[in-house]
Amino acid sequence: SSAFDSKKHPHRRYNPLLDEWILVSPQRSDRPWQGQTEKTIQQELPAYDSGCYLCPGNVRANGEKNPYYHGVYVFDNDFGSLLSEKVEFVNESSDFFSMKPEQGINRVICFSENHSLTLPEMEKKDIKKVIDVWQQQYEELGNNDFINHVQIFENKGQIMGCSNPHPHGQIWAQSSIPTAVIKTQQNLRLYFEKTGKSLLEDYLKKELEAGERIVLENESFAALVPFWAIWPYETMIVSKRKAGNILQFSEEEKYALAEIIKDLTTKYDNLFEISFPYSAGIHQSPTDGLEHPEWHFHMHFYPPLLRSAEIKKFMVGYEMLAEAQRDVTPEQSAEILRNLSTIHYKKKD
Amino acid sequence: SSAFDSKKHPHRRYNPLLDEWILVSPQRSDRPWQGQTEKTIQQELPAYDSGCYLCPGNVRANGEKNPYYHGVYVFDNDFGSLLSEKVEFVNESSDFFSMKPEQGINRVICFSENHSLTLPEMEKKDIKKVIDVWQQQYEELGNNDFINHVQIFENKGQIMGCSNPHPHGQIWAQSSIPTAVIKTQQNLRLYFEKTGKSLLEDYLKKELEAGERIVLENESFAALVPFWAIWPYETMIVSKRKAGNILQFSEEEKYALAEIIKDLTTKYDNLFEISFPYSAGIHQSPTDGLEHPEWHFHMHFYPPLLRSAEIKKFMVGYEMLAEAQRDVTPEQSAEILRNLSTIHYKKKD
Ligand SMILES: O=P(O)(O)O[C@H]1O[C@H](CO)[C@@H](O)[C@H](O)[C@H]1O
Ligand SMILES: O=P(O)(O)O[C@H]1O[C@H](CO)[C@@H](O)[C@H](O)[C@H]1O
Repeated sequence: SSAFDSKKHPHRRYNPLLDEWILVSPQRSDRPWQGQTEKTIQQELPAYDSGCYLCPGNVRANGEKNPYYHGVYVFDNDFGSLLSEKVEFVNESSDFFSMKPEQGINRVICFSENHSLTLPEMEKKDIKKVIDVWQQQYEELGNNDFINHVQIFENKGQIMGCSNPHPHGQIWAQSSIPTAVIKTQQNLRLYFEKTGKSLLEDYLKKELEAGERIVLENESFAALVPFWAIWPYETMIVSKRKAGNILQFSEEEKYALAEIIKDLTTKYDNLFEISFPYSAGIHQSPTDGLEHPEWHFHMHFYPPLLRSAEIKKFMVGYEMLAEAQRDVTPEQSAEILRNLSTIHYKKKD
Repeated sequence: SSAFDSKKHPHRRYNPLLDEWILVSPQRSDRPWQGQTEKTIQQELPAYDSGCYLCPGNVRANGEKNPYYHGVYVFDNDFGSLLSEKVEFVNESSDFFSMKPEQGINRVICFSENHSLTLPEMEKKDIKKVIDVWQQQYEELGNNDFINHVQIFENKGQIMGCSNPHPHGQIWAQSSIPTAVIKTQQNLRLYFEKTGKSLLEDYLKKELEAGERIVLENESFAALVPFWAIWPYETMIVSKRKAGNILQFSEEEKYALAEIIKDLTTKYDNLFEISFPYSAGIHQSPTDGLEHPEWHFHMHFYPPLLRSAEIKKFMVGYEMLAEAQRDVTPEQSAEILRNLSTIHYKKKD
């Protein structure tokens, strides 16, 4: 029998943020693919599209007209998953039938008036303005009595359920702390109680020492492929200092965050020379008014593509029923991303 | 303010199998859809396809030739995620970098020699033969010293990453008990320790009393939309008596299971009059040689479609980062499924 080699042998890895194991099958990278492929329509978009409900001056499905905005524009989602109305509720929950009303606010954030842009194609100073708005929104929404958690995220690309290419993200703010955030918080807290330190601060130190999973780094942030990443090119941006949430960032830090977002998403676009789809979002402390010394700001990027613009990783069957599984190792993915240029392929000559 | 109505107001529901909450947004069902649609190719398939690596007599990618089988045929996956080889391992895990080798066996189960069939279009007696093989495989694989869990599942349809329409499922058998199964087991066990009873037996009793989430029922099994289902038409087949695993089923019970699988998947096909995609799989006791009085056999069906053959539910952004979310309520979905015929639309005249 041979000696274990994580580049060759199936193994499981532990995710300390979720207290979960995942399955890695490096030997499986070269299986043939005969399944579904994605349409990749690479059309140049106009800066203004009269049929787009997010473009300035256009009318949305509910009859409201967007202002002739320039830069970032925020509005309440016309078809929100949450409503701010408080309803009267008599709790009749039993062992198997527990439910409770949930209050909340959904917002849409247009990143730019320009229909044809995406984050990697925006100027660093304009991405900084998006981050300013994330900060304002986190504060404003979080100040509501009934808002205890503010989830900021972006779905990019049709394959990620994004129904409109106009550059935009969303915020779902709500009374409860959602399932995945509560789990993360529990694990951050256990570590903090045990060591008096931030799990992610200690983890990032070890990753910077090791180097092999680091994709990008500047004075305030690092982007890396987590040791326990499940998506082929999953990454996480972590602040170098322990900041519990986005409110704690200075102007310089927001510039540094804009820069690393621009560089990371540019590398993503350069990987297959397409506008790279992903869901991305920020995990940070809840707005429940409690002390949260355990929290440490980070941003997850979950991109679905595997081998090309056409072939995605399917998280189905085994993954839905049993455990997340990946083929290529996090170290291999990090190396590929690290070696890609931070100059966007469309700008190369 | 109005009184809470679960058909109208956003709310969260509790999943006692996973100890997790999910978000339900019934008011959101009628938002317009402008996003990605799925290709639905509804072509009639031949009973034998010379290009299919699962058809009898054909040669697979690794050069092996399938026998001229009739009925069910099992073989080791040529590109498995797991290997049975035992490797030498020195554990150097630290806080943030825990990994360990994983041993296992992956198998493919062809349900029929007929390339053109799917479970709902097979005879009940032939589905029964698939269940016989599931039983044999669970026993045979589980008897291996290094196999502590046997995951039986099916990915059906291109949208579920299934690369070949030939009717087939898979088995991933391995040393560790996978993440989602361990969680389910913990919750079943807590309930068993508290009450001396099976969580799912008690739950099913309540569901049969309530009726509104039941889709199908026979003498030994019921199929229902769980109170906490996340996929639009998610269902679960539960055995009426507490059987920890498939080995405990009699011939009659296996017939009853074949029948409810046939009727449920037929309803699925009838919903949009297409071959309905899903991932399905069995949760049952591990093969770790320990007593498992907490376990209760059940089979999950996770179908991705939402509103039509073309429009699926995207579990992205908020769902990946925060919490599973659904629009239509489980009660509405159950009613729709319950009212569908168990005669396959292709057989109607
Ligand atoms: O083994 P297959 O059918 O080639 O692959 C499919 O099912 C597997 C198990 O659910 C997944 O890991 C793969 O992502 C999916 O494409
Ligand atoms: O709100 P959108 O962009 O219409 O919808 C998209 O993102 C939501 C949040 O991740 C998901 O719940 C939807 O399934 C998806 O289609």
